[in-house]
Amino acid sequence: MAKLIRFSVSMDEALVRAFDRVSRDHGYVNRSEAIRDAIRGQLVRHQWEAGEEVAGVTTILYDHHRPGASEALTEFQHHALGCVISTTHVHLDHDNCLEMIAVRGEARTIERLADQLISLKSVKHGALTATSTGKELT
Amino acid sequence: MAKLIRFSVSMDEALVRAFDRVSRDHGYVNRSEAIRDAIRGQLVRHQWEAGEEVAGVTTILYDHHRPGASEALTEFQHHALGCVISTTHVHLDHDNCLEMIAVRGEARTIERLADQLISLKSVKHGALTATSTGKELT
Amino acid sequence: MAKLIRFSVSMDEALVRAFDRVSRDHGYVNRSEAIRDAIRGQLVRHQWEAGEEVAGVTTILYDHHRPGASEALTEFQHHALGCVISTTHVHLDHDNCLEMIAVRGEARTIERLADQLISLKSVKHGALTATSTGKELT
Amino acid sequence: MAKLIRFSVSMDEALVRAFDRVSRDHGYVNRSEAIRDAIRGQLVRHQWEAGEEVAGVTTILYDHHRPGASEALTEFQHHALGCVISTTHVHLDHDNCLEMIAVRGEARTIERLADQLISLKSVKHGALTATSTGKELT
Repeated sequence: MAKLIRFSVSMDEALVRAFDRVSRDHGYVNRSEAIRDAIRGQLVRHQWEAGEEVAGVTTILYDHHRPGASEALTEFQHHALGCVISTTHVHLDHDNCLEMIAVRGEARTIERLADQLISLKSVKHGALTATSTGKELT
Repeated sequence: MAKLIRFSVSMDEALVRAFDRVSRDHGYVNRSEAIRDAIRGQLVRHQWEAGEEVAGVTTILYDHHRPGASEALTEFQHHALGCVISTTHVHLDHDNCLEMIAVRGEARTIERLADQLISLKSVKHGALTATSTGKELT
Repeated sequence: MAKLIRFSVSMDEALVRAFDRVSRDHGYVNRSEAIRDAIRGQLVRHQWEAGEEVAGVTTILYDHHRPGASEALTEFQHHALGCVISTTHVHLDHDNCLEMIAVRGEARTIERLADQLISLKSVKHGALTATSTGKELT
Repeated sequence: MAKLIRFSVSMDEALVRAFDRVSRDHGYVNRSEAIRDAIRGQLVRHQWEAGEEVAGVTTILYDHHRPGASEALTEFQHHALGCVISTTHVHLDHDNCLEMIAVRGEARTIERLADQLISLKSVKHGALTATSTGKELT
């Protein structure tokens, strides 16, 4: 069961006002939630640097007309079976496909799979989005 | 119809050798493809900075037990109907959900939608992955 | 005169513990200071995105043996007189120089100057470090 | 003695044109130099990830009125004598100082020193700029 605690932070008034203004610009209605998100963001970066078990999304943009494109993508994902949770394919236009691959596992393994996919000749662009399994991220 | 051109680049030999070594580490078998990907990466960054029409993935990690969590997410996505192409929901464990939202539209509009989703109280962590519609990215 | 205020933040205990652990790893002895720095980091990013008056450091690595290297660097810096506060030159070895250029001005102007310097043929590598004039950053 | 080699790259014409346009926006007059810089940027990132010997600049913004501010900064820099090459101090206004610290050494050691300085209470904001000693970066 999660246990909420409450602690106080002291800060120069001008700093608090500036933070409230910027947070509101980014959609926050609540200072505490903006601070919690800043903290969670640092934890996620730490989990990836430390090579812990993490979750993420590998996004790839590719041209499905390239010979062998889909086969190579499918094969690499099957080799990394333990990491790949789910793949969604979006048809952007006649040539371009966007694929979102939900992944989970050790940070280094996930990074290696992303490298393998992004370096393929049929893949025009790709990126690995780092997030967390959420377990430590209450 | 795409038209291939060929041009030559001069470079210090040590620089070429070092680049080949690092590219191989990242999965590239071919120097030209590693250079094309470096170039495409700069174009994607430019498209986002210039506020052009782009594509991307908004990833959010959230706890579906939070009251109102799914409703708020669904409502924001419906308000941004023109941008959201497809959403995939992954159950990470009993509490944690990973959602991958494929988006397309003007860079600023997509960034605003990501802000709205990520700032929600039920959303623990989120990130916007920038890619391209692929049209200019041959 | 700066006016300190104190406010309270509620957070899941596990999140607080994890943040304390990661902050300590990065040298913080005090949770409040770690939170203030996270907040200041977001303000600095905002000031640059909004194109406000900022401060920064342009770092360039170059080979002073290249014909015209120093002249071009000096000329660009003089054209941007209003921005450049101070330049420090470090001799890394027989060929390589590291130059740290303290700058201050509108974010876009500073970015343009950094582009001009980094794109020079004699400059091997460069980067613009974003910080603030400190006025709003109490 | 550096040895120049020349190799050819094939690329879709539209991609080359788009890259030339974006490079020109960033100050490049020459396609080869824009490509060399993209390659050098990847090598620098690799050197830092691999923990090699690198160079960099630690930038800190601080309020010199805080009791003990300068002493702590000086002490940490002396403890890291092997790393710190040169420090330049800039007076931004009555309260705010910008310090640029040229560093050189193993990536991890440099990162630790930057953490120590940035986490100090008197330091409002700081950043570590990654560059190279230039040896491999011809």
